[in-house]
Amino acid sequence: MNLLLLEDADFVAADRAVLSGRRLKHLHEVHGAESGDSLRVGRLGGLMGRGTLLALDEQHAELRVELDQPPPAKLPLTLLLALPRPKMLKRVLQTVAAMGVPRLVLLNSYRVEKSFWQTPFLEPEAIREQLLLGLEQARDTVLPEVSIEKRFKPFVEDRLPAISAGTLGLVGHPGDYPACPRAVSEPVTLAIGPEGGWIPYEVDKLQEAGLAPVQLGERILRVETAVPALLARLF
Amino acid sequence: MNLLLLEDADFVAADRAVLSGRRLKHLHEVHGAESGDSLRVGRLGGLMGRGTLLALDEQHAELRVELDQPPPAKLPLTLLLALPRPKMLKRVLQTVAAMGVPRLVLLNSYRVEKSFWQTPFLEPEAIREQLLLGLEQARDTVLPEVSIEKRFKPFVEDRLPAISAGTLGLVGHPGDYPACPRAVSEPVTLAIGPEGGWIPYEVDKLQEAGLAPVQLGERILRVETAVPALLARLF
Repeated sequence: MNLLLLEDADFVAADRAVLSGRRLKHLHEVHGAESGDSLRVGRLGGLMGRGTLLALDEQHAELRVELDQPPPAKLPLTLLLALPRPKMLKRVLQTVAAMGVPRLVLLNSYRVEKSFWQTPFLEPEAIREQLLLGLEQARDTVLPEVSIEKRFKPFVEDRLPAISAGTLGLVGHPGDYPACPRAVSEPVTLAIGPEGGWIPYEVDKLQEAGLAPVQLGERILRVETAVPALLARLF
Repeated sequence: MNLLLLEDADFVAADRAVLSGRRLKHLHEVHGAESGDSLRVGRLGGLMGRGTLLALDEQHAELRVELDQPPPAKLPLTLLLALPRPKMLKRVLQTVAAMGVPRLVLLNSYRVEKSFWQTPFLEPEAIREQLLLGLEQARDTVLPEVSIEKRFKPFVEDRLPAISAGTLGLVGHPGDYPACPRAVSEPVTLAIGPEGGWIPYEVDKLQEAGLAPVQLGERILRVETAVPALLARLF
């Protein structure tokens, strides 16, 4: 936790917040925080700055906060991700938030196992929890928007063309395709497939919606590795 | 497992191999493999190609193999990594192997918790197991060399200058430094710090050994995210 994220409900006055729960536990156990300590804090959806611990016990921590810095810029990106397996989903959500992806679409694909859609990690509260961990890691205050599309075809046919319009549309896909471009300056719509990759029908449909296949070399990477690799190369 | 890796001990003839244990279990449970199936195989340290399952039961699988393709090229890189916490170490070892890092040095740093050096995941067999998983993921046959340096100063003073000589030496470090270069053509020596970063003394010592600090932006990334991000940007 490189940033203590405060939510509206934590504020008891314009410059005072009171914490409990997970963040308090972290302050005690990981930071070994004490009254008087100064910490990096941010207000969810708002500014970042410093917080001074006024009081700290087993139940609550009270801080005086001064928020004066904007959060870091987001990437100009909409990321489409074939739904990863639940354990990987958690880490990928953290990575997406940490790297500054503003919009994530979790999408079905032929090679997404049906059981993955049953995971409790797809509940809105569970998704939010992982995104918060990513924001705390990277020092950002703005939650990415996450949408869930359980039907590939209607999403790709009916809604993706409007999302990709005016952006550089790309599909990460191993094969005889151009290399993923570097250091682009325009907004991007990027689709990353499941383990085992998109099926040819899906690549065709994504192409019809304006996304061009690109590759990262002959090595097959796990989704949690491919996401930071593609983003670091693109931006 | 995108590549079934065979070891010398598996071969019962020049073109026949017999498997048991983890790989057999994976063939049954994940691949649902059956006699007659053709699989991508590779020989550890050697060529890759196809294997045909001649027989398969609960105890063994026998394959006829034909190996004729070289493994993918490695990156021209020596990666120095402050020892990550044990759970992250496992994933980072897989990522390092999957991305084609040929040489990894696990290094001490002031901010590496002493307890991390006690983990059983640092045993040679445990390291090898994670590297094999990374090779199987990415379809490579050549294990990275991993060395363990529990003392920062003697390593950085006495041995690092020879490693970094003739390479582009870089230290990933947040701060007011030049951005990490893109698409370099020369060999690289790259050092990535622990959670919380290198301390100033360490950055100084790494600079004396020929490594220049570079940054990836103001977001603080976890080691397992920073590694693929830096490698994808550099190569």
